[in-house]
Amino acid sequence: MLAEIICIGDEILIGQVVNTNATFLSKELNKIGIEVLQVTSISDNIENIKNSLNSAMKKADLVLITGGLGPTNDDKTKIALCEFFNDKLISNPDVLEHIIKIFKDYVKKPINELNKNQALVPSKAKILINEYGTASGMWFRKNKKNIISLPGVPFEMKHLIEKEVIPKLKEHSTFHIVNKTLLTYGLGESHIAKRIESWEKELPKDIKFAYLPNLGRVRLRLSSKGINEKQIHAKIDKHIAKLLPLIKDIFVGYEEDAPVEMQIQNLFKSNESTLAIAESCTGGEISSRLTKIPGSSEYFLGGITAYNNAAKKEILGVDEQLIKTHSAVSKEVSKEMAIRVREKFKSTYGVSTTGTAGPSLGES
Amino acid sequence: MLAEIICIGDEILIGQVVNTNATFLSKELNKIGIEVLQVTSISDNIENIKNSLNSAMKKADLVLITGGLGPTNDDKTKIALCEFFNDKLISNPDVLEHIIKIFKDYVKKPINELNKNQALVPSKAKILINEYGTASGMWFRKNKKNIISLPGVPFEMKHLIEKEVIPKLKEHSTFHIVNKTLLTYGLGESHIAKRIESWEKELPKDIKFAYLPNLGRVRLRLSSKGINEKQIHAKIDKHIAKLLPLIKDIFVGYEEDAPVEMQIQNLFKSNESTLAIAESCTGGEISSRLTKIPGSSEYFLGGITAYNNAAKKEILGVDEQLIKTHSAVSKEVSKEMAIRVREKFKSTYGVSTTGTAGPSLGES
Repeated sequence: MLAEIICIGDEILIGQVVNTNATFLSKELNKIGIEVLQVTSISDNIENIKNSLNSAMKKADLVLITGGLGPTNDDKTKIALCEFFNDKLISNPDVLEHIIKIFKDYVKKPINELNKNQALVPSKAKILINEYGTASGMWFRKNKKNIISLPGVPFEMKHLIEKEVIPKLKEHSTFHIVNKTLLTYGLGESHIAKRIESWEKELPKDIKFAYLPNLGRVRLRLSSKGINEKQIHAKIDKHIAKLLPLIKDIFVGYEEDAPVEMQIQNLFKSNESTLAIAESCTGGEISSRLTKIPGSSEYFLGGITAYNNAAKKEILGVDEQLIKTHSAVSKEVSKEMAIRVREKFKSTYGVSTTGTAGPSLGES
Repeated sequence: MLAEIICIGDEILIGQVVNTNATFLSKELNKIGIEVLQVTSISDNIENIKNSLNSAMKKADLVLITGGLGPTNDDKTKIALCEFFNDKLISNPDVLEHIIKIFKDYVKKPINELNKNQALVPSKAKILINEYGTASGMWFRKNKKNIISLPGVPFEMKHLIEKEVIPKLKEHSTFHIVNKTLLTYGLGESHIAKRIESWEKELPKDIKFAYLPNLGRVRLRLSSKGINEKQIHAKIDKHIAKLLPLIKDIFVGYEEDAPVEMQIQNLFKSNESTLAIAESCTGGEISSRLTKIPGSSEYFLGGITAYNNAAKKEILGVDEQLIKTHSAVSKEVSKEMAIRVREKFKSTYGVSTTGTAGPSLGES
C-alpha cells in the first residue's frame, strides 16, 4: 500500500512549529508495511486542500490528513472534505454526546455553539471518536482508496492513530518494510563508500542502501520490502554480515527502535545498579534525557551541573589544586568529578562530562 | 514572492529524521517577506524530484530544494536537476580546489574519486561554495523563477542560507510578512472564540487570525503582509490593543523571536545577578535548556538534580522532617530546595522544581 501524508496548518509554513506529526505518521505506517511516497504541508485554505487531495489520490492508495479540524473559523478541513467528496455536514449524536461529556468531566464549562458545531461531520465518513478531544477523526472510502482526516494536536492525533487507524490498516496490509541502520563514527561517507564499493555493487536491486551523514558520523541504512518479513530480515542480515568486517574500525552499533536512553535504563535495571552524573559542558542535558524515560527514578539517583570551577570545587568537592594543575577540561578532573558524584549520591556508577562549549567553530 | 520547499530524502519518509530543515527555511523566508505555499518531502528518486519541481514551478516564484547532494550513489538530485534543466555536469575548478582544501585542512585524508565527482556541477547553475562541506549549493534561473538546491546536512544548509541565499533574495523582496502571537493559558479555543467573536468579525480581510491549541494553552496569531512594514505592524498592534482587554485573565505574554531561555539570560545579565537551580521532576531539563544559550556561564552557576528524597536530603541538605511532614511534592519542600541550592552555589537567585512525573494520564 502506498500512502501520502497531508499536513494542514499555516503554523508549519511560517516555521512556527516543527512538523513532528509527519515523522510520527511515517514511522507508524512504515512499521505496518505501508510506504510513504510524499509528505505535503499546506495552509488552511479550501482550494489548496482540495488540490493536494486530488494530486495525492492519483499516486497513493491511502491519504492521511492532519490538522484544520478545530472549532474556530480558521479551520477549513471539514468544508474542503465536503466539497471534495460532494458531501454535506450532519450532526452526529454520538459525537455530540462525547463532546458534552468531555466538557462536563474535564473542561468543567458549559459547551457553546462552536463546540456543538464540532458534532457536525460529513455524512459519508466513518467517524472516529477522539477520546482526548472534541475534533473527530473521519475515514472516507473512494475508488477503493482510504482517506483519513485527523486532528493536528499531536497527542490527539497519536491516540487516534494507535487506537483506531493502525489496527484497521494492519488487517489489510500484507506487506512488510524492513529498515536496518548501522551507526559509524570517524570516517566520511565518501571514504566509506570507496571502501565498501564492491560490497555495495553486489547488493540485490531490492535492497536500497543509503548514507546518512552528519558531523563526525555516518549512518548506513539498508531497506527492503516484501510479503515475507522473515525472509526480508534474513536477506538484509546476510548482507550486513558481509559488511561488518569491512567497517569494523568505525562501526559502533545499530540504531534501534528503542532510544539509547531506554537501552541505558534497561542495562542498569538488569544489573540492579544505580547512576549519578556530574555534568559540566553538557549542562544537565544527560540527566534530563535519562529522566524523560518513565521508570528512570529506579536507577538514576541524580546529578550535579557544575558549570564553573567554583561549583566543581564547592559542590562536587574536586580538589582545587587538581584543576590548577591540569585545567578543568582534563582527563584528571573529569575522573575526579565522576568519583565525587558517585560518592555523594552513593550510586554504583558515577559519570562525568567536561569540555569547552561555545558558539564558535572548533570550540565545541 | 511565493516559495515552495522541496525536501529530498527517504529518511524523512520513513520517519527516521524530523524535518527541521523545512522549519528553518520557512522561518527565514517569512522574515524577508517570502510566503511559503507548500513544503513537499519526497524520496531520492529522479522522476519524483522532476515531477515535484515541475509542479512547484507552476505555483511558486522560488523553489528551495534540500538534500540528495552527497557523493554516494543514493543521492540523485544533481542528475534530476540536469535532466530538468536540460543541462550537463561539468567540473568546476573552484569547487574542486575547495574540496581539496577541506580534505587537507579538516578531514586530513587524501580525496578520492567520489569527492572529485562533487566538483561536477550543472553548467547552467551559479555555484554557492559550501564552506562547511563538499556539496555545493546551486542556483538556477528559469522563466524568471529562482530554483536553489542546497545540501541536506542541517549546519551546511543553514550556513549557505544565511550567507549566500537570504542576502541575495532580500535585495529583490519588497514585501513584508508580520506574525504576532499571543500566549494564553487556562481557556479552551472555543470559549476564547466565543468571547472575542465580535472582535474577530471586525478584523480587516488582510489580517489572518489563527488559534493554535495545545494541552492547557492556546496561542493566538495575527498575520498580515504588505509593502510597508511599519504600517503592517501598526495595523496589527491596533487590533491587539482592542483584543487585550478581552483576554486579560488568560493572556500571559507574546511569543517572541528570541527563545525564552535567551530572554531569561538577558534579564539576569542586565541585573548582574546569578542563578542556581534544584530540579526534581524536571530532571535537569531547565539547566540543560539554559546552558544551551551561548554566554549562559556568565549568570548560570549550576544545578542539582535531586530526583529522590535521599538526594534532596544528602546533596541539597533539605530537612528530612520537612519532607516527612509535607511530602516531597509540597510548597514547603520546594521552597527549601530553592533556598538550599542558592546557598550552595552562592547565587543571587535559587529556583526549584518539584512534582510527580509519570507516564500515566493525570500524573504529570
